[in-house]
Amino acid sequence: MPHRPAAGPRGAARRTLRTGPDIAMKILSGTALAASFEDDLKREAAALTGQGIRPGLAVIQVGEEPATQVYVRSKVKTAERVGMHSVDHKLPATVTQADLEAVVDRLNRAPHINGVLCQMPLPPHLDGGRITRLIDPLKDVDCFHPYNVGLLALGEPRFLPCTPAGILELLTRSGIAVRGKHTVVLGRSNIVGRPLSILLSQKGWDATVTVCHSRSEGLVELARQADILVAALGKPEFVRAEMVKPGAVVIDVGVNRVADPTARRGYRLCGDVHFAGVAPRTSAITPVPGGVGPMTIAMLLRNTLVGVRLQHGLAEG
Amino acid sequence: MPHRPAAGPRGAARRTLRTGPDIAMKILSGTALAASFEDDLKREAAALTGQGIRPGLAVIQVGEEPATQVYVRSKVKTAERVGMHSVDHKLPATVTQADLEAVVDRLNRAPHINGVLCQMPLPPHLDGGRITRLIDPLKDVDCFHPYNVGLLALGEPRFLPCTPAGILELLTRSGIAVRGKHTVVLGRSNIVGRPLSILLSQKGWDATVTVCHSRSEGLVELARQADILVAALGKPEFVRAEMVKPGAVVIDVGVNRVADPTARRGYRLCGDVHFAGVAPRTSAITPVPGGVGPMTIAMLLRNTLVGVRLQHGLAEG
Repeated sequence: MPHRPAAGPRGAARRTLRTGPDIAMKILSGTALAASFEDDLKREAAALTGQGIRPGLAVIQVGEEPATQVYVRSKVKTAERVGMHSVDHKLPATVTQADLEAVVDRLNRAPHINGVLCQMPLPPHLDGGRITRLIDPLKDVDCFHPYNVGLLALGEPRFLPCTPAGILELLTRSGIAVRGKHTVVLGRSNIVGRPLSILLSQKGWDATVTVCHSRSEGLVELARQADILVAALGKPEFVRAEMVKPGAVVIDVGVNRVADPTARRGYRLCGDVHFAGVAPRTSAITPVPGGVGPMTIAMLLRNTLVGVRLQHGLAEG
Repeated sequence: MPHRPAAGPRGAARRTLRTGPDIAMKILSGTALAASFEDDLKREAAALTGQGIRPGLAVIQVGEEPATQVYVRSKVKTAERVGMHSVDHKLPATVTQADLEAVVDRLNRAPHINGVLCQMPLPPHLDGGRITRLIDPLKDVDCFHPYNVGLLALGEPRFLPCTPAGILELLTRSGIAVRGKHTVVLGRSNIVGRPLSILLSQKGWDATVTVCHSRSEGLVELARQADILVAALGKPEFVRAEMVKPGAVVIDVGVNRVADPTARRGYRLCGDVHFAGVAPRTSAITPVPGGVGPMTIAMLLRNTLVGVRLQHGLAEG
């Protein structure tokens, strides 16, 4: 597959390629944008540390699922790179609900911890919903707590959920305006599709937003109307060329492992978009990996700074 | 204007009129549906009263705005008709924030009160957001508290907001399925457009939902795609025939007063839909008044029963 490489971590945020007579396609490199965003985070973290508040993030991890470990490592590493301290709580897969809740409770009360998240999904004997609601809403850097989700839906967010916020930041920093434009979001998950669709159609963003899902009739025609198409279904290479309007912007949120005997690990990563087929029709597209993913982690750290300000009653930095 | 009358309060819920060669148009009478719904509420309220719990609703009203008084009277009257007791707290327009909060606090703690709402908007010297967040989430029958809005957005609602719930109930009781269908919601308010669009696209309802607003480009073409078109913009007779696909279902949420020197009060009520022009194209349409409005009040009382069950730990009735 002619997979187009993303720009390097400190390279240009976009690569412009002539793909046809009229359309100049840009690859939106989340890796590069996140790196420039990290510089901002670093400055802010340093300023707070100078005031005696070193921002701290706690990640709770239950069990040893390899994919989870990759995510957590990446979060912890990035936190440290921008000058925050981070605590990685590894609990055995057999941990009891009571013991897990005790850890959350302790982190809620720990003054040096400004953000707390518990990596989901949890083993089936644990009640993830209870854990989500137990995390102090002022430290809820994933923005999963119902109170924070409610503030978001009401247009008064404190935290922004990381993946939707990463997509919005990626669009903004790439100079892509959404106001008045038709955005079609494929997927209605509580982590991506739902909050992103709410944010995009709110005042300030002002997009027209259509939410589609597996039960939508006429999905191909709906997708083809999109000025901005967001694929967040978790279905490998679901979006094909015929679903994309020429010149559209395509944001690929999917991270899927598909078996590939030629790959070293026996699988390769791919998005929800058939990149090779779709990219040439678009005016801009995010790659997988190196698109939305790195921005998501940057937003988690931004939320940790928001947490510092909320907990210390500081104005926006 | 050839205004088609709604069916009487105990009449048929729909009136079917032949409006063209192919389309049989039904007027969806919220008045009639709400009356049949009230019978269910009455039975449930009587059953609870038999167990020693007479459901109680408290409405707080600040100032004497005539439109507000009409709404409040209607809520209180309907509550009593279905066998609930209701308390109407009239406070002067000059009430202080502290005194208003004291009233909310007292109602939160009153065991015979199962639902509390404060009629909005409040005079400008009062902080409505604080009042909304002060109402006990277990008594929040308007479903305006961020925690309840969050549960709704996450697909785990306790209460449903009254107008969106009224629309869903009206569709269901009229045999109109939304699954897979394209619903276009005009308006993104926190009271109607936003929560309705969230509910419609959730599992169980499974509609494809587009949210449009005043900044949407190509609004006419978008509206014309709708299988179900919901007008909730607060713009008198904004929706004209050319915005409606032949055979669509049209739900009119608007209640607008427009000057009319020939009317006794000097004004007439009209919806967001130009009824005379639009109705003949539709397969079903709600009138104003007598459409969504009566269903909204029925849902408020249903929420009061939900409140009873939440506060007393009872299973769904």
